This record gives sequence, structure tokens and C-alpha cells, in this order.
Amino acid sequence: MRDIIKTAAELLTVLRNKKPLVHNITNYVTVNDCANIILAVGASPIMADDLGEAADITAISSALVLNIGTLNRRTLESMLASGKKANLLGIPVIFDPVGAGASALRNEATKTILTEIKVGVLRGNMSEISHIAGLGSNTKGVDASEEDIAAGDALAIAVSVSKKLRCVTAITGATDIITDGNRIAAVSNGHKMLSGVTGTGCMTTALIGAYCGAGEDAYTAAVAGIASMGLAGELAYEAAGGKGTGSFHVAIIDAISRLDEKILLERARIHEK
Amino acid sequence: MRDIIKTAAELLTVLRNKKPLVHNITNYVTVNDCANIILAVGASPIMADDLGEAADITAISSALVLNIGTLNRRTLESMLASGKKANLLGIPVIFDPVGAGASALRNEATKTILTEIKVGVLRGNMSEISHIAGLGSNTKGVDASEEDIAAGDALAIAVSVSKKLRCVTAITGATDIITDGNRIAAVSNGHKMLSGVTGTGCMTTALIGAYCGAGEDAYTAAVAGIASMGLAGELAYEAAGGKGTGSFHVAIIDAISRLDEKILLERARIHEK
Amino acid sequence: MRDIIKTAAELLTVLRNKKPLVHNITNYVTVNDCANIILAVGASPIMADDLGEAADITAISSALVLNIGTLNRRTLESMLASGKKANLLGIPVIFDPVGAGASALRNEATKTILTEIKVGVLRGNMSEISHIAGLGSNTKGVDASEEDIAAGDALAIAVSVSKKLRCVTAITGATDIITDGNRIAAVSNGHKMLSGVTGTGCMTTALIGAYCGAGEDAYTAAVAGIASMGLAGELAYEAAGGKGTGSFHVAIIDAISRLDEKILLERARIHEK
Repeated sequence: MRDIIKTAAELLTVLRNKKPLVHNITNYVTVNDCANIILAVGASPIMADDLGEAADITAISSALVLNIGTLNRRTLESMLASGKKANLLGIPVIFDPVGAGASALRNEATKTILTEIKVGVLRGNMSEISHIAGLGSNTKGVDASEEDIAAGDALAIAVSVSKKLRCVTAITGATDIITDGNRIAAVSNGHKMLSGVTGTGCMTTALIGAYCGAGEDAYTAAVAGIASMGLAGELAYEAAGGKGTGSFHVAIIDAISRLDEKILLERARIHEK
Repeated sequence: MRDIIKTAAELLTVLRNKKPLVHNITNYVTVNDCANIILAVGASPIMADDLGEAADITAISSALVLNIGTLNRRTLESMLASGKKANLLGIPVIFDPVGAGASALRNEATKTILTEIKVGVLRGNMSEISHIAGLGSNTKGVDASEEDIAAGDALAIAVSVSKKLRCVTAITGATDIITDGNRIAAVSNGHKMLSGVTGTGCMTTALIGAYCGAGEDAYTAAVAGIASMGLAGELAYEAAGGKGTGSFHVAIIDAISRLDEKILLERARIHEK
Repeated sequence: MRDIIKTAAELLTVLRNKKPLVHNITNYVTVNDCANIILAVGASPIMADDLGEAADITAISSALVLNIGTLNRRTLESMLASGKKANLLGIPVIFDPVGAGASALRNEATKTILTEIKVGVLRGNMSEISHIAGLGSNTKGVDASEEDIAAGDALAIAVSVSKKLRCVTAITGATDIITDGNRIAAVSNGHKMLSGVTGTGCMTTALIGAYCGAGEDAYTAAVAGIASMGLAGELAYEAAGGKGTGSFHVAIIDAISRLDEKILLERARIHEK
């Protein structure tokens, strides 16, 4: 399908012209990489997590990225305040439920965020999104009892979550699935070495935030962010994979900073269904 | 002007012999880079932000760097306690008002720090220092109404702030301006790619902290820190700029770790006015 | 001594097959490197420091690493809760008393952790472990008054601490000493450039955590972690030392990601006494 690839590729150029400010309330493990990848793709990052200013910073931004990788109560309050401000102002919210399913605190925080905030894009791995798919039931963690959610069926889970939450849902894995409930894209870019670097999921979410800040359509933004990261993994492997995961990590940022419409058009592998 | 270049270059050698301990209360986005650049230039970093020890750590350090990049109330208190201890003991305080002007919290924190602590060096970009230049008035954010502050006039703003706060003021940009109110230096080293990496401003401030820990004259320390960073940008671009911003980022640290008097004498472009 | 080298080298293969989850409550300066080095050696990192989930995360992990590099009261409570849970479940606790001796807060925290938690491996530099060796007395900081602790006598200090705390104690330096009170190993791998990168101590502790998560014997795990890091320093210097400390830093992660039994067998320099 050329259309979605072309649309995604063009969004990169729009992004670089607009240089949107992207507010991140995120974890302290991968925050430097998130800031640098947002700069590399052509947007401008700002990290601010104190309740005293979080909503103010959101108000001057073009997108808000929430990531619960090192969740704590102080920043959760800031996430809620920023998310509500974003909803009020029509600023897209991108949510990365890191580790949803792994602890009661993360499960509750995820539920609270999804209940109190209208999320534009939800991005996680199979385990995290599966957990969210089961949130409506009484169980905690992944709920395999709901009939429509078969283990491994990323597409069904993503569509189900998108319809329930009225958002774009992305499940990243060997093949990435992105859907808004109607449109469905599968991205097959990527490299297995990406799992050897911490924060490649967080960085993908940050990229989606940057693309969301550039254009109106959250589905296209999610596809563009995920394809960009997958392609960066391939390019980084070609450039530095043989040296090890440290050099590969650096080369991911390099690849995003050198990405352009032409590379995306030539190498993005996106199929709509 | 050879004098300031020679003085700055010699300070690097003094620094490497003294290995000053530099206490940083800073943001969690760029803290790893700040620690590594302090090591690379030859000093020793320590990060401690709990109120229960911040002032104690300051007391054993040769310089204190305060950076409000991810300001929160908990660490603001620690900054004030450390700053007061530093003032009491004659330890230089270097202040980076990241994002001053962008939120009420940052504006208030900036005002509080500048009111309660005698800062030795203030380093920021044009927007941040312009905001501070207007702090005396009733407006928040950049105050363009004061007659003596014309937009774009970095030199006038820096001199004005230095005289008001009795500190060295540095405005970094395409050309960096450093002044203590009397002496004025312009540094034209640097590379535009530096703006593609997060924390190059924070790292510059950290370097100033290291140089302040090595010598008595805060003006020379600020010039040396800023020239070192600008030169590192040039050297990093030569070494790795073509690869992308990830490799460029790594090469900045490389360049600082290999910097010496000779390179500074040959390539620093510092003009006193 | 071939036996300990062979045992340590084989533990790497066990680790890579098991991929243990390693819970880290650590500092925000070097946390990204700790996560990446845990991935590079073949384990899986998780960072969670909120009291609301810390013990829950520990309960699903194979090892718990506590590091007080940017100690604060909030995370100290989480360390204690996690440590107690780990003790209850027989999960090994690895403790890095960063800066013990440097402030009253760190001294008290160190004492509290060592009193309330059964630590499996304690790793620090000479200054930190010497401080702990003197904790039983009334003095703060290094206690040189105890007869059996002569300055510079790392071996005697390590054995003394191991016997007192019934744990494996590792003092890293030019030569690293590891002991469980009975067995004693000296590791002479390493490179002086390691001290030019922040967090190489934290990363060593993280590696010990990964090895502890893979096998039963904490002494072997500590030896394997320390030898791996020392060897990585040598390999990183060979690969990138000439470029500077930024590239060397990246090459440390590269080296760990490419480490295998064969390299350890050929190049580890471990002597048992």
C-alpha cells in the first residue's frame, strides 16, 4: 500500500518544518534517549513533571507523552493534571503503559489514566496491551477469559482496545499492529537487536508524540513513529550492529537524525488491511 | 586577544591537576552527560539532591552547579540549602535557569534562587537571561518593556544582569557573550549541530562549574567552559557529524576528554571588548 | 587458578539461557547504563522505586540491586521494603553503598540497610568499604582505629566485613578483591580509563546482580561480574580508547554484549588465594 507510506513519509517533512514542542512526563531510565530522539526526528522535547508546572507546560506544547516506566505517586498526579489540560485544549495525549500487568500500582495507574484522560494513542507491547484489554473485567493482569481475546492475537486485541477506548492502539513486536478501530496497519520494519537496548519502546512512543505534534491524524502519526523506529533499527544494525549493543544504541539516534522522506518511501514496510 | 585565551587554556591544566569536586543538583534528563563531561574535563562530579545531605556535600565540594531543567519542590529546597552553604563557605555557585520564562514555577524558582543565593555565574540562552533581566518589573516572562533591553541585544542584557546581580552572566547562542559587568568576552566557537543534542547547555554549565572549582576568577572560568564546549562541538562535528546526532553526542565527550592547552590556544576564538 | 575462571565463565552461559529479571533501585545518574549493561550481559532489567510497588516487583525478580548514588528518603523506604521482601523470598540482594562516608545521610542509610537487610553481595571502593568496616565503632567515616584494618589493606578489610555481615564483599580498585570470608579472589582485569566514565562502579554492581540472578553462589557471581567489567574495560580501550571517554563508554556496553565463555576463559585474570 503506497498511500499510508507516502502519507507517513510526508508527515516527517511537515514535522521538520513545524518543530513541535513535545511535553514528556516519563521515566528516568530512558529520558535522555527520548529527548534526543525527539530532537533527532526534528521536534523539540520538554520534560517537566512537577505538579506546580506540568499543566502549564502541556498548555504550550503540541503533544503530551505519558510513560509510567518509573511510575511514582508524585508524577502520576502530574500526568493526570497534564492529561486533563491536554484534553481541554485538544492537545494529543500519547500513553505508554510500561509494565502494565506487572504490579498493582501500575495496573491502577493505567486504569486511572485511561479513565480520567482521553488518550489519542496507546502504545505498548503485547503483554501490556493485553492487560489493558482485560481491564473491564474483575481480574488483574492479562485476562485470557474474554472470548474475543485469543493469546497472540495482537490484531483482535488492538482493535478491541481501540473501540473500547476510542483511541489509536499500537502493539509493537516482531510485526507492529496499529489501528484506530477501523483502519489497520502492520509494520514489518525492525530488528531483533532493538530488544537489546533499553528504552526502544519508550523512544518509539516519543517519536509518535513528535509526529502527533506535527499532524492531525493520530493513526498516521503512530504508523510514522513506529515505522521510523523500526527502520532506524535496521539502519543502525547495518551501521553498527556488529560492534555491539552500545554502538547500535548510538546508531539508532544517528539513523533517526538522518531519516528523510526518501528513505521512508524506499524502505518502510507498512501494509494496510 | 591572546590574554584571555592563554589564561583560559592555562586554567584547564590547573583544573586537571586539582581535580576539583563539583556538586550538581540538576535535572534527570542530562545528568549522565553532565557527570561524564565533568570527568572528561578532569574534575570529579557528585550528584546529591536530598535535603538531608545536599549542604553537607556542597561543603566538601569546590563548586556547586544548580540546574532547574526538571525542577521540583523537593530539589528546589535542596538547591537553596546547598546554595546558602556554598555562600557561607565561599564556594562558587553556577546557576543554569533552564526554561526560565516557560512556567510560573520556573519563574518563581529562578527569582527565589537569585534572591536568596549569591550566584557566581549565571548561564542561559537569550530567552532565559532576557526573562531574568526583566525580573525586577511586575511582568512575568520576558520583559521587553524595559528601555535598556532591546530584543536581540545579548550584550546589553548580559551586562545589565551582571551589574544587577553582581555576577558573571553568560548568554550562549551563535556567538556566546560572557561578562562580569566590566570585562566582556565573545566566543565564536561552536557548531549548529550542538542544538540537535539535548543537554549541551547543561553540559556547558557543568564545565563552567568544573573550571570555577579550579580557579578564583569566575569570569575566566565561564569563558573557559564556554569555549571548551564550543570547540568540542567543532571537533565532534569533524569526527562524527556526518554519522548523525547520536555519534556527534558521543564525540562531544571524546573531544572534551582529549582537550588540552595546545588545542585551546590554537582553536579557541575568544574576543574581549 | 582455572577453576574459578571456568566456573565464572560457565555462569555467563547459564545467565544467557535463564535471562533473569533484575530489579534495581538505583540512582538517576547512571541508571540507563545499568539497564543497558544488564541487557548486554543477557539479563532483563526492571527499575521501580515507588513504595507502592517496589516489593511487588522484587517478588517477581531473580535479584535485587540497591544503589544509594542519589539517595533520597522516598527511595530509601522502597529499598528497605524491597530488601525485606527479597530476604523473605530468598532473592539475593546486592548493595552498592555509593559515597558511604561522604555524608551523614549516606552513613545512616548504609547502616540502616545493612542492619535491616541481609545483603548477599556488598560492592564498593576502598573508601566506601572501609567506612563500613568501621561502622561498629562510634566514629563516622573511615575508622582507622580498629587494629585489624590497616590503610590500603583491602584484603583484610574485605574479609573482616564479610565475616561481620556474613556476605560476599568486593572491593574494586586497581586489583579487585572478592571474598565470602573463606574464599578469596583477586581480579586483575581492568583499565584505568574506567575511572573516566561515570557509573562503571554502578555497572559492575548491576552485572553482579545479573550473575546473582543466574546462579546460587554469590561469590562466583561477584567474581564473574567484576571480571566481566574489568575485561570490558580492556576490550573497550582496545576498540575505542584512543577516541576519548565518550567512545570508550559506548564500547564498554559493546564489549559486554559480545562477551562469551571463550573470551572469559582466555582473558579473565582471576587468582584465588
